[in-house]
Amino acid sequence: MVDAEVRVELKKGVADPEGKNVEKTLSLLGFEGIGAVSTIKIYHVQLDEPNERRALETLEDMCEKLLANPVIHNYSVKIL
Amino acid sequence: MVDAEVRVELKKGVADPEGKNVEKTLSLLGFEGIGAVSTIKIYHVQLDEPNERRALETLEDMCEKLLANPVIHNYSVKIL
Repeated sequence: MVDAEVRVELKKGVADPEGKNVEKTLSLLGFEGIGAVSTIKIYHVQLDEPNERRALETLEDMCEKLLANPVIHNYSVKIL
Repeated sequence: MVDAEVRVELKKGVADPEGKNVEKTLSLLGFEGIGAVSTIKIYHVQLDEPNERRALETLEDMCEKLLANPVIHNYSVKIL
């Protein structure tokens, strides 16, 4: 079993309402000097594939088919 | 402005229905050898605080007050 992480983040320019809300709420809570807040999603995946290159290919395939929407997301995969 | 990342993940033993659903859907899509899938949330925060130690303290304070629920989440902060 290999442990891998898939990182899915919004492309530049795509609205991130959750990030904006966190930003606003932090200010309301009294935190000062807050710049932009954005949210990123990580999927920690265990995969039964001893070959690292093939594991990475499988993970990229998962992103294309399920984990990321190529219109709005950038993704990256790494083996831990 | 410093760029920081706050990583919020579920504690061991806490149910992660989103991860479980991804796991099941990947299998239904034909992916084989999938072990556990779990989800992690990253908040990318820009902070106007030149002192790194104080920035980290502020970020931990944000976790305690808003970003994480100490009952179910572990969190970690890092300056990029």
